[in-house]
Amino acid sequence: MSLIVQKYGGTSVGTIDRIEAVAEKVAGFHHRGDDVVVVVSAMSGETNRLIGLASEIHDEPSPREMDVLVSTGEQVTIALLSMALQKRGCDARSYTGGQVRILTDNSHAKARIQDIDAHRIQADLSAGSVVVVAGFQGADEQGNITTLGRGGSDTTAVALAAALKADECQIYTDVDGVYTTDPRMVSGARRLDQITFEEMLEMASQGSKVLQIRAVEFAGKYKVPLRVLSSFEDGPGTLITLEDDDEMEKPVVSGIAFNRDEAKLTIRGIPDVPGIASRILGAVGRANIEVDVIVQNVAQDNTASLTFTVHRNELAKAKGVLEAVAKDLGATTVEADAGIAKLALVGVGMRSHAGVAATMFEALANDNINIQMISTSEIKITVVIDERYLELAVRALHSAFDLEQCDKSE
Amino acid sequence: MSLIVQKYGGTSVGTIDRIEAVAEKVAGFHHRGDDVVVVVSAMSGETNRLIGLASEIHDEPSPREMDVLVSTGEQVTIALLSMALQKRGCDARSYTGGQVRILTDNSHAKARIQDIDAHRIQADLSAGSVVVVAGFQGADEQGNITTLGRGGSDTTAVALAAALKADECQIYTDVDGVYTTDPRMVSGARRLDQITFEEMLEMASQGSKVLQIRAVEFAGKYKVPLRVLSSFEDGPGTLITLEDDDEMEKPVVSGIAFNRDEAKLTIRGIPDVPGIASRILGAVGRANIEVDVIVQNVAQDNTASLTFTVHRNELAKAKGVLEAVAKDLGATTVEADAGIAKLALVGVGMRSHAGVAATMFEALANDNINIQMISTSEIKITVVIDERYLELAVRALHSAFDLEQCDKSE
Repeated sequence: MSLIVQKYGGTSVGTIDRIEAVAEKVAGFHHRGDDVVVVVSAMSGETNRLIGLASEIHDEPSPREMDVLVSTGEQVTIALLSMALQKRGCDARSYTGGQVRILTDNSHAKARIQDIDAHRIQADLSAGSVVVVAGFQGADEQGNITTLGRGGSDTTAVALAAALKADECQIYTDVDGVYTTDPRMVSGARRLDQITFEEMLEMASQGSKVLQIRAVEFAGKYKVPLRVLSSFEDGPGTLITLEDDDEMEKPVVSGIAFNRDEAKLTIRGIPDVPGIASRILGAVGRANIEVDVIVQNVAQDNTASLTFTVHRNELAKAKGVLEAVAKDLGATTVEADAGIAKLALVGVGMRSHAGVAATMFEALANDNINIQMISTSEIKITVVIDERYLELAVRALHSAFDLEQCDKSE
Repeated sequence: MSLIVQKYGGTSVGTIDRIEAVAEKVAGFHHRGDDVVVVVSAMSGETNRLIGLASEIHDEPSPREMDVLVSTGEQVTIALLSMALQKRGCDARSYTGGQVRILTDNSHAKARIQDIDAHRIQADLSAGSVVVVAGFQGADEQGNITTLGRGGSDTTAVALAAALKADECQIYTDVDGVYTTDPRMVSGARRLDQITFEEMLEMASQGSKVLQIRAVEFAGKYKVPLRVLSSFEDGPGTLITLEDDDEMEKPVVSGIAFNRDEAKLTIRGIPDVPGIASRILGAVGRANIEVDVIVQNVAQDNTASLTFTVHRNELAKAKGVLEAVAKDLGATTVEADAGIAKLALVGVGMRSHAGVAATMFEALANDNINIQMISTSEIKITVVIDERYLELAVRALHSAFDLEQCDKSE
């Protein structure tokens, strides 16, 4: 008998039929004797419907009132799922975030969980109930309703699992696990049985949308065993684990993440003196534009160039900021390029294997793919390339690192 | 500067445009310097939509989970109305029933208010905010969400007005006040400037749907001045007051209420011995059927007959119960009649005026309307007649008691 926290997202509870299917799955665990806490999102489409109502009234609705409004979405789902569980003979009780209570700070729309009172849930579990909790929401010290921001339901599930010391936190999604890379792009992409938290973090931050980064960080911090699996079909999914000892046995590379959401900006001909980078990036930051990969180089004429990527939606805004800064600094040119893609090799095994970068660059060179930017960390190598070559590059690397070969234990 | 509690029902907040119109009205009071607490219902149609979702899952959903579900309806409205108020420069804060907190017993779907903590609302009012509260809902001692049952938003408003010692509780509806009788039936029907709580109670219980009985009882008990007025047009509405001292000045009859929701059952030839009525009505009560007007008579042969009315939907069920009881008691016949209407004259003035009943019966006789049942209380005379004559009877009585004549002060 285990204590399991399960999370089902908006697509998994998007219709009455799907809520019934989730109830069927949960009831199976409960009838086998597991203690189950279920975290659910709003039915898909519902949050957008509510945001639409607000936008008819106010261009910039108050964050406090937005939280009151959108938190009703999950509240509808918890009630419906509890009814569907009761129909299957499971005693079930639903709770909003505020009722649990999940205490957060008062940053509406992007609140952070500070504490969870697990007593009420534990009492219900002891009494044989399935407990159904609204994801994505909590309440601050004063009892004001807060929401955790996008993807917050994953975080709710992980935080509850930590507070309850659950045996496993299961995130049910529309994919059956974490893959070596996107299976829609590489037919030989392989589901990983296991991946470490660090690798998962790097994969998530590089565009793998299976799990929210905050939830993975939280799970890593509190050592909650996390499993990603499919709402729609049975299977073991992917277990996200603490780094284990047999690191030597691990393959060098676990997966390849990529995204096309970014654009590249370059400012050239800037005087190569200390503080220049911070003046440029400071101006960008003050405009509320987030910067991702940054590379700086010194040219032969002792001027420097700085290149960085931003979200593609913010390219025009960033270019405006940069042109103003260029004038101030006496820089020569500002270039903007939306046609790029970012690609990253991720793997804990890199730490103990030399030559990964060389193999990567060689594989890309063999296909005549030019590397525009390189950025490395201990378990990740990121490159920026021309967007047109993305599919080719992913397939080349997937093959170069033998990722389609059977599973990790080999 | 007054402290006013206002309540707007589902039709008044049924669309974004109507929510904007309510905000406009509320902002008017706020800008004039009044402290305003607004109680709102779910947007019309929303509660039924939610009940529909539940019914797809469960024939008899758990009352606790139904309350979690349907309470989202008002929560959406409070957020949207607060945003609309903020757009108009009013600081506004929304609260669910549980947040206020409105403490109720734990009878889900028909909870009763036990206590209201007014501190949070008072602090917000002192800070210059309009406070927007979800009607129809509260929370029990354990923090479980409860609802007050149909029409509960009126009760929320009155209870808040009592707790806050408000100067007035204003119930905004789709009519502009309480009328002497239904204006759709009698063109000369007149809006009353004032009516006493007792009269209002009798009017409500006899089918006048302007206010919920529980809210009127509550207002009477806590001496909250209550005003009924229109959401859609300006006007003074009808003030519901404690009985005042110049009762002699009052007209004999304040209004005429009626309804067609009932049906009549008669059981004849029962032995005229003590305890018979309670055996008959006890059996009906155990079948969960509510009985309204009851009349018992003894016939010449020393058998008795008992006639009573029930809601028309329950006629068939009640007839079944009665036939079984008739067999046990050796009664001769059971008759059921769905074609009846109930009609009541209401007026505090009746207390000090003789001959009201005689005038009423004479007016009905003049139009050849046969009276099937009569029941009287201190401020009300109820008759049951053939449904076909209802309009005729209401008009005849409206005229016989001069109700179309100008206002009470004459």
